[in-house]
Amino acid sequence: MLARMNEAVRIPLAMLLVFGSAKLLAELCERFGQPGIVGEILAGVLIGPSVLGWVTPNDFLQTMASMGAMFLLFRVGLEVKASELMRVGGTATLVATAGVILPFFLGWGILALWGAPQIEAIFMGAAMVATSVGITARVLAARGLLAERSSKVILAAAVIDDVQGLLVLAAVSSLARGKVNVPEIALTAALAIGFTVLMATLGSRAMGRIVPRVQRSMQSAEAEFTLSLVLLFALSLVAVYVGVAAIVGAFLAGMALAEHVEPRVHDLVHGVSELLVPFFLAGIGLHVDLQVFTNPTILLLALVILVAAVLSKFVGCGLAALRLGRADALRIGVGMVPRGEVGMVVAQIGLAMGVIRQNTYAVAVFMAVATTLVAPPLLNIAYRKAMPPPRGGKLLRTG
Amino acid sequence: MLARMNEAVRIPLAMLLVFGSAKLLAELCERFGQPGIVGEILAGVLIGPSVLGWVTPNDFLQTMASMGAMFLLFRVGLEVKASELMRVGGTATLVATAGVILPFFLGWGILALWGAPQIEAIFMGAAMVATSVGITARVLAARGLLAERSSKVILAAAVIDDVQGLLVLAAVSSLARGKVNVPEIALTAALAIGFTVLMATLGSRAMGRIVPRVQRSMQSAEAEFTLSLVLLFALSLVAVYVGVAAIVGAFLAGMALAEHVEPRVHDLVHGVSELLVPFFLAGIGLHVDLQVFTNPTILLLALVILVAAVLSKFVGCGLAALRLGRADALRIGVGMVPRGEVGMVVAQIGLAMGVIRQNTYAVAVFMAVATTLVAPPLLNIAYRKAMPPPRGGKLLRTG
Repeated sequence: MLARMNEAVRIPLAMLLVFGSAKLLAELCERFGQPGIVGEILAGVLIGPSVLGWVTPNDFLQTMASMGAMFLLFRVGLEVKASELMRVGGTATLVATAGVILPFFLGWGILALWGAPQIEAIFMGAAMVATSVGITARVLAARGLLAERSSKVILAAAVIDDVQGLLVLAAVSSLARGKVNVPEIALTAALAIGFTVLMATLGSRAMGRIVPRVQRSMQSAEAEFTLSLVLLFALSLVAVYVGVAAIVGAFLAGMALAEHVEPRVHDLVHGVSELLVPFFLAGIGLHVDLQVFTNPTILLLALVILVAAVLSKFVGCGLAALRLGRADALRIGVGMVPRGEVGMVVAQIGLAMGVIRQNTYAVAVFMAVATTLVAPPLLNIAYRKAMPPPRGGKLLRTG
Repeated sequence: MLARMNEAVRIPLAMLLVFGSAKLLAELCERFGQPGIVGEILAGVLIGPSVLGWVTPNDFLQTMASMGAMFLLFRVGLEVKASELMRVGGTATLVATAGVILPFFLGWGILALWGAPQIEAIFMGAAMVATSVGITARVLAARGLLAERSSKVILAAAVIDDVQGLLVLAAVSSLARGKVNVPEIALTAALAIGFTVLMATLGSRAMGRIVPRVQRSMQSAEAEFTLSLVLLFALSLVAVYVGVAAIVGAFLAGMALAEHVEPRVHDLVHGVSELLVPFFLAGIGLHVDLQVFTNPTILLLALVILVAAVLSKFVGCGLAALRLGRADALRIGVGMVPRGEVGMVVAQIGLAMGVIRQNTYAVAVFMAVATTLVAPPLLNIAYRKAMPPPRGGKLLRTG
C-alpha cells in the first residue's frame, strides 16, 4: 500500500483520464450532431503527448486498447449472421481487392514522386491498404445499421481486406529484408485464407451443436458467457498464429455464436466492450505526433497522402460495389475509408525495420488517424436515409 | 503482424490459459459440491510456476487481477445499501478491531518463539491482519446471501479492517525504517478514516441527486454506466491517495450508486466482472511457491501459522459478534478468515524492505492463499440454514 502507492495509482489514474476524457468528448460531439467516436479519438490526441501530455502510450494502455479492439469486433460479430455475410461474399471480395490495389499503388506512387527511397514508398503503400473495420463497425452498430446490406458488404470486405493486407505486408517485409520468400508467403496465404473461410462457413454450425450441450451440462452460472469468452480467446489466438490479426479471430468467434447464444450474453459482452472500446479509440489518438507538422513540407505531404487515402478507398471500393446501386456503393466506399490501428502497425514495422524514416512514420500515423476521424461524419451522411427506424443492432446503440 | 506476432500472441494466450483453466476447475469444484471460487484459485496454483509452469505472474496478469478485484468489490458494493451497512457499524467496528488485534499478536508471538528477528515477527503479524473481503463477498454474492445481516457485518467489518490494517502497516513499516513518525501516521489515519466515513455516509445521498440529472441531460447512450465507471475510477484513485486500498474505493463507489442506478448498469458491470474476476482469483494462486515446503521445518511453520491465522480471526471476530447470536457469530467468524491479496502485499513490502526472508515470505503467501481456500467451504456450512430461498443478490448468482 504505502510503499506501492505509485504502482497502485497508475491503473485507476490512467483509466480515469482516458475513459473519462473519451466519454466527455464523445458527449460534446453528440451535442454538436457528430458521432461520439470522433470525440473518443480526439480525446486521445488531446490528452496525449502532442497537446496536453497528461498520458503517454504505455504497456497498460496498449493492452487495454488491444482488448478493446478485440471485444469491439467480437460484439459486432455477435450481431452478424454468418450465412448472410457469405451471401455477399462475391461483392465483398471485389470491394476488398479494389480497395487494396488502388491505395497501395497510389501511396507508392506519391512517395516515389516525392523522392522517397523505393522501399519506403512501397511501405507507405502497404500502410494505406488495410481498412480498420473497428471504426466503421462502431459507427454502424451505434446507429443500429448492422442489418443493412451495405453494412454486411463492408464487414465481409474488411475481413477479406485484412487477410489481403497481411499478404501485402508479408511480401513487402520480405522485400525489405532483401529476399522474397515465395513458399513462405504462399503458406501464410493458405493458412490465413483457410482459417477465415473455415470459421466463417463451419463455425456457426459447430456452435449450434456445442452451445446447447454446454448449456445443459454445465453447473456453473453464466456458462454460455464463459463458453463465448473461451471461444473468443481461442480464435483470437489461432488467428494470430495463422498470421491474421487477433481482431479477425474475435469477429469470427462472435459470428459463430451469433445465432446460438441467449440475449444475456450480448448484454454481458456489451458491458465489457463499453468499458474497453474507449481505450481502443483514444489509443489511436494517443499516437498522433502533431509536432512534425510544424514543417510545411511534411504537412503538405501528410495532406496529399490523406486525400489519396480517402479517395483511393472511396473510388476503388465504391466502383467495385456499383452493381448494388449508387446509394449502397456510396456507403461502402465511405465505410472502407478508416485505416486506424492497422495502418499504424504497418508503419511501426517499417520503422522497426529501419526502412521508414521518422517523418514518414508520422505521416502514416496521421493518415491512419485522420481517416478514422473523417469517416464517421461521412458515414452519417451516407446512411442518413437508412436511419429511421432503428432496428437490428438495438443492443448496440451506444452513441 | 508478422514481426509483432510474439507480442500479439501474449494477450489472447494468457487470457485463454488463465480464464479457461479457472472456469474449468470452477466447474469441477461445483460438481463436487464445492464453491467454484476454490477451483479458480487452485487453477492459478496448477498452471503457475510451482506445478505446470505454463504461466508466470507478469505485468499483464497483475493488471487484470487488480482490475478484477476492483470490479468484484464494485459489484458487491452495488448490492449493498449504505444505510443498512451503517446500521451495523458498531458491531462491525468491534468485529474488525478484535480481528486485527488477535492475529497480529499471535503471528508476532509465533514467529518470535520460532526464533525469527523481532522485526520479521512483527511483519508476519501485520501480514495476518487484513481480511480479503473479495473472497467472502464472492461466495456470499454467488449464493445470493448479501442481504443477510451477518453478510453486512462482514462487509462493513472488512472495510474497517482494511483501514486498520493500513495503519498497522504504516506503523510497522516506519518501525522497520528505524523511526516511528507519529504525526505522519496520525495524518494517514485521519485521511483514511475521513474518506471512508464521508463516502459511506454522504456518497449515496450525493449520487441520488447526480444520477437522475446526468440521466436526463446526457445525449450519449449508457450514460448511467459511464457515470458509474467514472465514479469507480475516481474513488479508487482517491482511496489510493488517502492510503487505503483501491478496492475500498471501488466498494464505496458501488455502494454510493446502489440505490440509484437502473438494473441495466448491474448487468453491464456483471459482464465486466465475470471476465476479470477469474484473473484476480487465479492470480492469488499463481503466487504460491510449493517448492519451499520440501523443507519440513518450513512446512511445519506454515501449518502452524495457517492454523493461527484461521483461529485468530474466527475466535476474535466470532466473539466480538456474539451478541448477534451464535449462528451469526459463527458466520462472521468464518467470513473474516480469508486474507488473500492483502496479506501478500504486506509480505511483499517486508520482502522489498529486506526485513522478511524468502522462506518467511513463502509462509506468509501460503497463509494468505490457504485461508482463501479454507474459507469458502466453511462458509457453505455456516450459511447452510440461510440458503433457501435465495434473495437479494439475484443478479450476482454466478456459482
